[in-house]
Amino acid sequence: MEYKMIEGGVTAPKGFKASATFANIKGKMSEKPDMAMLYSETKTSCAAVFTTNKFAAAPVIIGREKLKAAKLRAIIMNSGCANAATGKEGLANADKLQNEAAKLLGLEPDEVIMSSTGVIGVQLPVDKMMQGVKDLVPKLDAKNGHDAAWAIMTTDTVSKEMSFELQLSGGAVRMGAMCKGSGMIHPNMATMLAYFTTDAEISAEVLQPMLKDAVDKSFNMTTVDGDTSTNDSLFLIANGASGVKVESEADKKAFKEALDYICIGMAKKIASDGEGASHMMIVEAKNLQTLKDARLVAKSIAGSNLFKAALFGQDANWGRIIGAAGYSGAEFATDKLDCFLESCAGKIQVMAEGAGLVFDEDKAANILKEKDITVIVDFHDGKEEATAYGCDLTYDYVKINGDYRS
Amino acid sequence: MEYKMIEGGVTAPKGFKASATFANIKGKMSEKPDMAMLYSETKTSCAAVFTTNKFAAAPVIIGREKLKAAKLRAIIMNSGCANAATGKEGLANADKLQNEAAKLLGLEPDEVIMSSTGVIGVQLPVDKMMQGVKDLVPKLDAKNGHDAAWAIMTTDTVSKEMSFELQLSGGAVRMGAMCKGSGMIHPNMATMLAYFTTDAEISAEVLQPMLKDAVDKSFNMTTVDGDTSTNDSLFLIANGASGVKVESEADKKAFKEALDYICIGMAKKIASDGEGASHMMIVEAKNLQTLKDARLVAKSIAGSNLFKAALFGQDANWGRIIGAAGYSGAEFATDKLDCFLESCAGKIQVMAEGAGLVFDEDKAANILKEKDITVIVDFHDGKEEATAYGCDLTYDYVKINGDYRS
Repeated sequence: MEYKMIEGGVTAPKGFKASATFANIKGKMSEKPDMAMLYSETKTSCAAVFTTNKFAAAPVIIGREKLKAAKLRAIIMNSGCANAATGKEGLANADKLQNEAAKLLGLEPDEVIMSSTGVIGVQLPVDKMMQGVKDLVPKLDAKNGHDAAWAIMTTDTVSKEMSFELQLSGGAVRMGAMCKGSGMIHPNMATMLAYFTTDAEISAEVLQPMLKDAVDKSFNMTTVDGDTSTNDSLFLIANGASGVKVESEADKKAFKEALDYICIGMAKKIASDGEGASHMMIVEAKNLQTLKDARLVAKSIAGSNLFKAALFGQDANWGRIIGAAGYSGAEFATDKLDCFLESCAGKIQVMAEGAGLVFDEDKAANILKEKDITVIVDFHDGKEEATAYGCDLTYDYVKINGDYRS
Repeated sequence: MEYKMIEGGVTAPKGFKASATFANIKGKMSEKPDMAMLYSETKTSCAAVFTTNKFAAAPVIIGREKLKAAKLRAIIMNSGCANAATGKEGLANADKLQNEAAKLLGLEPDEVIMSSTGVIGVQLPVDKMMQGVKDLVPKLDAKNGHDAAWAIMTTDTVSKEMSFELQLSGGAVRMGAMCKGSGMIHPNMATMLAYFTTDAEISAEVLQPMLKDAVDKSFNMTTVDGDTSTNDSLFLIANGASGVKVESEADKKAFKEALDYICIGMAKKIASDGEGASHMMIVEAKNLQTLKDARLVAKSIAGSNLFKAALFGQDANWGRIIGAAGYSGAEFATDKLDCFLESCAGKIQVMAEGAGLVFDEDKAANILKEKDITVIVDFHDGKEEATAYGCDLTYDYVKINGDYRS
């Protein structure tokens, strides 16, 4: 399926507005906004996925509860403070901000949710952020999707947005997305914060399983450092503003394909901008007996510190690839495995039928000079396949994370 | 229990000899030997633990098989080439070297085993190593434990040895150990190569469960980079040369305590010399409901790239500690957790009852300047505890692993 790419991110679909402001959450002046708001002019259907971390942040605890009501109209977001491991005070702070936003927007408290990202264990600076909420409401505009994407960035080096139009039987609908995520990225789920919007009309009952499946293929196959965050939250909001319903099986299929496409696209943006990354790594595990095995293998290779460091060094140390496959927990035959390294500079086979090949090191080095590297492991032991997304392990990852709080 | 520490490593117990030689396995001249041999003058009882990696190296495949015969008298070891992912040729090469050693030592082929460490996917240089075996046999001597420990090093910066004497009811017995391991260190099991010797007389049936339990507490709680090797092998060889039997329950208990002590001691040596490490990290997970939960939490924290990078930066970013506990898969209450950081410079509490404390950052910084750092997480939610061993994530880890093959 080809999609018509358009500008606008989360506010590209009709009936969505966003805003961003600087509330000085970290107590350091900056040009970058640190609070944002996303708003739908009309009622919505909503689906969401949250972190599986036991120390879920206050906004995640509240979000899970509110999503049951499924009446979401607005989301407040902030970077600079995760509001995680903040106890009862953290829950009360999130409530206070949400209630203020609901009052100013003329919504019920149940219709406003909050999501936070940043340092763990520090309370939100509520007074500054109450002023932030007051600033955000009048600035809401359909032009501000990009500003919101900028506001939620932490160690991200680029804002992460996508938006496009797709044709359904009833007409065109739009899909938009923004997310932030650079470190503390690991299944389940690997996003930190992600927001998807659509002006299609589709029920929450249909949306939730679609979202779960799309996330399993994309964000849950993405790893930067093996650390699952306390704050991961992903929202998909459909407001029906296009007047186009997603009801027929064909339309559902087309909508689901588009959702997969945008989720995988955003997951790749996260992998490509992994903290300190100089290479994106795509791992294709092919021809295993079960999908679970294929996913285990692909994620294990993408997450191997040793292979990630080799990739940084542009060293075709494929032994580490099969080492990581071997400890993934997946079941497979070890004597039929072919292994390839590929980039836009070419493709080279480094292993055949489970044993190493003598290969042209110069050609391999040329392939590994490119930014985006694909590792293909073909087990010839089944028909299932899976793809994982990751990046290399660099000096800069260590530098960024050696001194994140200051 | 106090032990009388003695010199000698694996050859400290009576009746053991070792030797080392340079066979030029990597094709680069070096002062460091790259082959070693360990030999018992008399028949032995033997226990062993091997890697769980599906791509087990040729010597591991052979070793598992031979250990069933349990007649081990000699081990050939090499660094520089792992003989993993080497197919049938790899198995044949290991057999050839083992058979040559058996012939020269006047032993049955079943009594000689081999273990290898180094680059994956490259065949052993058999001709050079056949000469190596010829050199090793006449050099066998009870004085050469240290040379053997040196020969098995790869990226290790120090050789790892221990030996001591303990008193049993029948008299004194000795225990000795050497191991190598620096990168590709992760349960199960986390050692690369480890050899334990004792001159106690004890049956293989008693040894194997003792060893399994000791390894679960030590090497299987040690992580450097989350990568489980293809070659991990640990041997415990008892030759009875002291004439002291381990039969009574009291003697078995004393022997087991000594085995735990030496295994934990060696595991700490590996963690402390983790590739590029500037800090050793000891994680004590306390008062959880099950041992499994306690081990999951301790290992997860010790393995968190984010906290490992913070430790390198001497940054008391405890949020990453509880983040890692939260995604460990363990069950626990989140609202009673106390968290402390400790070193020889002092101890500081950073979290109480599940929420962050305001603490003295200068004091925390002083504590984190020390090399050995203990993280204590007390869940007040049960009675089980576990300790994990790890190290920080540094520029040097990336450097070492960005260009390991060359």
